[in-house]
Amino acid sequence: VLPGDRPLGQQLGAFVAGSDWAATPPALRHEAKRSLLNFAGCAIGVARSEPVEAAARALRPFAGAPQATVIGRAERLDVLSAAFLNAISANLLDYDDTHLSTVIHPTAPVAPGVLALAEWRGLGGAAALHAFILGAEVECRIGNAVSPGHYARGWHITSSCGVFGAAAAAARLLGLDAEGCWHALGIAASQSSGLVENLPAAAKNAAMGSAARNGVVAALMAAEGYRAAPLALEGPFGWMQATGGEARHGEVTEGLGVRWELLRNTYKPYPCGIVFHAVIDACLVLRAEHGLRAEQIADVTVLGDQLLLDRGSRPVTGERDAKISIRHCAAIAFLYGRAGLEEFSDGVVMRPELVAFRDCVRAQRDDALPMGAATVRLRTTDGRALSATVHHPRGSEQYPLTDEEIEEKVRDLARYGAWPANTGPMIKGVWALEDALDIAPLMRTLRLNPQ
Amino acid sequence: VLPGDRPLGQQLGAFVAGSDWAATPPALRHEAKRSLLNFAGCAIGVARSEPVEAAARALRPFAGAPQATVIGRAERLDVLSAAFLNAISANLLDYDDTHLSTVIHPTAPVAPGVLALAEWRGLGGAAALHAFILGAEVECRIGNAVSPGHYARGWHITSSCGVFGAAAAAARLLGLDAEGCWHALGIAASQSSGLVENLPAAAKNAAMGSAARNGVVAALMAAEGYRAAPLALEGPFGWMQATGGEARHGEVTEGLGVRWELLRNTYKPYPCGIVFHAVIDACLVLRAEHGLRAEQIADVTVLGDQLLLDRGSRPVTGERDAKISIRHCAAIAFLYGRAGLEEFSDGVVMRPELVAFRDCVRAQRDDALPMGAATVRLRTTDGRALSATVHHPRGSEQYPLTDEEIEEKVRDLARYGAWPANTGPMIKGVWALEDALDIAPLMRTLRLNPQ
Repeated sequence: VLPGDRPLGQQLGAFVAGSDWAATPPALRHEAKRSLLNFAGCAIGVARSEPVEAAARALRPFAGAPQATVIGRAERLDVLSAAFLNAISANLLDYDDTHLSTVIHPTAPVAPGVLALAEWRGLGGAAALHAFILGAEVECRIGNAVSPGHYARGWHITSSCGVFGAAAAAARLLGLDAEGCWHALGIAASQSSGLVENLPAAAKNAAMGSAARNGVVAALMAAEGYRAAPLALEGPFGWMQATGGEARHGEVTEGLGVRWELLRNTYKPYPCGIVFHAVIDACLVLRAEHGLRAEQIADVTVLGDQLLLDRGSRPVTGERDAKISIRHCAAIAFLYGRAGLEEFSDGVVMRPELVAFRDCVRAQRDDALPMGAATVRLRTTDGRALSATVHHPRGSEQYPLTDEEIEEKVRDLARYGAWPANTGPMIKGVWALEDALDIAPLMRTLRLNPQ
Repeated sequence: VLPGDRPLGQQLGAFVAGSDWAATPPALRHEAKRSLLNFAGCAIGVARSEPVEAAARALRPFAGAPQATVIGRAERLDVLSAAFLNAISANLLDYDDTHLSTVIHPTAPVAPGVLALAEWRGLGGAAALHAFILGAEVECRIGNAVSPGHYARGWHITSSCGVFGAAAAAARLLGLDAEGCWHALGIAASQSSGLVENLPAAAKNAAMGSAARNGVVAALMAAEGYRAAPLALEGPFGWMQATGGEARHGEVTEGLGVRWELLRNTYKPYPCGIVFHAVIDACLVLRAEHGLRAEQIADVTVLGDQLLLDRGSRPVTGERDAKISIRHCAAIAFLYGRAGLEEFSDGVVMRPELVAFRDCVRAQRDDALPMGAATVRLRTTDGRALSATVHHPRGSEQYPLTDEEIEEKVRDLARYGAWPANTGPMIKGVWALEDALDIAPLMRTLRLNPQ
């Protein structure tokens, strides 16, 4: 039997159990910290909103000992309940990280279990960081193997693949051997779920919460000797078959431990659909280069691919629509010179000047533009025709956010979430995570009014 | 818009919230009690076995207040943890009930949440029974809509549809209105999972535990105002599409509240695959009619359809093989005149007389026999040729177990599980459930050494 013929779960289990922290590249460790910082910001930005409150009320009567921080909130809950709620908060604003080849948001389902387990067990930052890296790797590789068909069929890939990442990370953190990690992934396979249909509702995040929680449960059960079938992933009645039947096994195993998927992680600079980021950048470029004020603009034409047009041409009545509106993205860029959380919020979206500006923006298909790119053309009231094209928006793999920009994003999220504390210690804590002997102090910075 | 065009979740939600207990047929209530009695027996029979111990050890550090009975065990745990463990125990022996048109085991994912919630809230037996009936109905109808393709594709239908039943039952018990029930089902849709590949491992039951637990969580979240997409079941990126794309919507809604799926529930008289039940019955008939002793039998030929042969012709080395062996089923029937838990157990399967008898049994295909039927032919040592054919084995829809036989099965399960208490109060408690003002006394009969 060739190594490549071994069961996928066995190969992944050996990878997770055998990975050597000393051999992980510094750039990878740094990317993991960027992912966690972005994750923490997204969670504190929304942790006291109604959907998270509702989920917390639902779980509270059944929660166990206060073992782990619920990020951005005052209560501590048992590890599993904290993981569930933190995964909900991490993604609720649609502002978390994106692994572009799968559209997985890698951190939301994986980090919550890692942080909660590490906090409960009093583990250090390096162990947590390493487990998170391995979980994200497993999750994204399984996602690569089934993309793009998996998502297209209706599976919300962040949840459906996230449960594998959560299980792998927890298995590593619990010190399982290769076989134990294999069983953890097999138990996780039977709990994978998440539907694209539910994306417009908070139900999307219930699946993400379950992915985070159930992945940890899978590892805990495997640690106690609970067993799964060897081919739970790729067997004739396994996960790959049941969810659609198309999978490239090589994507799971090739270059494992050499090529790292987390190095391709990206962070949104704007809290709206990624397809609109090039539009915003092109508008901001025009505004800055020509010193434009909104009242100097007669009309705007946005050119993009079909996907951009399909997604961005609906009328705007509130925050949810605004986040998928070409017109709104152009309007806030020209009117305010920025596109942060405030500019997409319900209280801002229907301001008269925005309603008026949106009316002078139109969208047009241009098949010559590659996916993700956009051209913005405008005419000024004094008759000038100006144009800018952006191929790689800020936050893309080719033009990543800087560390400082991620920090600024976290501060913006903290303001949005009416976070009362200084974000400095939290930010510093994440950057120093690798050397932290215990992650408890960092988790304390993520709690509302810690004792 | 015609009533039939309303979203499936809306129609099911209206059914669950609007169902009138007074109008439910007495036969249906009685069948629900038979289902619960069979369920309780299956759970106490295995509740202290290693897989349940492992799952309990995994969850214990995170469990909340002792709100609900873990059936067959000493501890009480929070509602959600108890529901998880009880669903594992209910099905672990593969001896629970079967809804034959879907091969769903209806009770395992639905009853645990109902009983745990009712115990915690101090609810009465009629409310619990009603909620269970409604949950089973929703679960089996959704199963009918996607059968047989769903299971064939690799989905373990008891878990993947069970989560809907658990959600519906919990939503009813929590008093949600029609819209709340609709949202509960939508949240549940994003948490549906379970793989056929994992059937040979305890991982199968982790999915069943999650179905029971997550269904309750879906209802609890909906009760707190958490929301799902309206077409989570049948939308273009919804559950039916993602899990395979073939569904007959009419199976979900036609005759809702008039035709009841639980009336078609069946209970296994033998703890082995249902396809072998006709074989055992035919052997028992020959043994009784001709007063045969095993040593008078020269050889045995079992005739059946391809499914029987495919599943039943492998060698036997232990309990798991014995439960899917034609030879073993014939051997125990002729040697012992019974086919209970003891006769399939590891300590018995390799007895010399069984090994020898199995060698004189052969299986042969007979396409003239309908599915589920079997003919057994034998030659005696004094040269007689005897034969018996069974079309509808004991426990089938056509030849259901009597109430007394289910009671006897429960006593057999209690013996197998080394249950120290008298099963009388438990059995009496289930039959009297409809009139119980509080289900707490019944739950106490299901606890090991109750205080």
